[in-house]
Amino acid sequence: MDASGKDGAAKNVFKDCTPFNLSVYAFKKPTPIEFAHDFLWRVHQQVPTKGDIKVFNRSHYEDILIQRVHGWIDEERVHKRMAAINAFEEMLVFDNHTTVLKFCLHISKDEQQKQLQQRIDEPEKRWKHNDNDWKERDHWDEYMRCYSDAINWSTIPWTIVPVDERWYRDYIISKKVCETMEAMDLAYPQPT
Amino acid sequence: MDASGKDGAAKNVFKDCTPFNLSVYAFKKPTPIEFAHDFLWRVHQQVPTKGDIKVFNRSHYEDILIQRVHGWIDEERVHKRMAAINAFEEMLVFDNHTTVLKFCLHISKDEQQKQLQQRIDEPEKRWKHNDNDWKERDHWDEYMRCYSDAINWSTIPWTIVPVDERWYRDYIISKKVCETMEAMDLAYPQPT
Repeated sequence: MDASGKDGAAKNVFKDCTPFNLSVYAFKKPTPIEFAHDFLWRVHQQVPTKGDIKVFNRSHYEDILIQRVHGWIDEERVHKRMAAINAFEEMLVFDNHTTVLKFCLHISKDEQQKQLQQRIDEPEKRWKHNDNDWKERDHWDEYMRCYSDAINWSTIPWTIVPVDERWYRDYIISKKVCETMEAMDLAYPQPT
Repeated sequence: MDASGKDGAAKNVFKDCTPFNLSVYAFKKPTPIEFAHDFLWRVHQQVPTKGDIKVFNRSHYEDILIQRVHGWIDEERVHKRMAAINAFEEMLVFDNHTTVLKFCLHISKDEQQKQLQQRIDEPEKRWKHNDNDWKERDHWDEYMRCYSDAINWSTIPWTIVPVDERWYRDYIISKKVCETMEAMDLAYPQPT
């Protein structure tokens, strides 16, 4: 895989992938039934079966980020949740041979402001606008501190992806996914 | 709660309980979709919401008992699974305030033989007969060793219940459940 650069058509590995064994799940604000369970309950339900690829858009990490920044959970719970996350992810690895790749999409503060402003200024982007995004932005430094902890406390390493340039974001993620799959040394099954 | 003894009608706490917030789930031989996930996947889906009582008939412990006795998993995986079980149960406790009660229903070897034989001799019990139960019985000592390890390695304590006498089984379990609920000091909500 190579990135053809800013001016070309950068490859996005998932766009070239058959959807037969690939799916995406976006975690949103927890529903009442999700809130009535532990924080990993809804996540565990979505983990892929053997042989499948599952892309998580957000994850269990929200529960030690947003909730911590706003002080909805205390530091003791943050640490217990982080330990539970590590135990959970390690279990997926040893018990179901899952390969876990973790990407932190990092936008610069200036680029975020630019993009949020575009959502106000450009009619075709206005559907994305949310007042709350501007409020969350006030907690920028606290978010950075919590992201750092989440990344540093994690047993399975993160890939931090600068996303101000989309082609570079796609390149880094595609490269990581392709390298990982190549290292699996997959082969067609032999006829019996 | 008192046990009225062998000759009377021993109370079974669950028989007296409204089914509104009580349910029972029986784990059976894993389905193909369950086998395509880690061993805790199907269990996590069944954990109770806040305020509910869920009775598990069998559990994730099968995966370090039957599978270990038959050598389907190696000792390294047994130990990793046991650590994962402890982390999982502790997470239910700290993150969803779940109270976990664990009962090991222990039948004596003689009583088991008697009951299995009744399933052959008595027509109305014959539907329960399974040749495999007699085969598993050959592994009695190995099962006892694996049960002991499962109980001893567990962070959340087990209650070992002698079940040769049904009234005593019901009494011990009901007593434990009632004492636990009384200690919760539950109260009706106040009108607002």
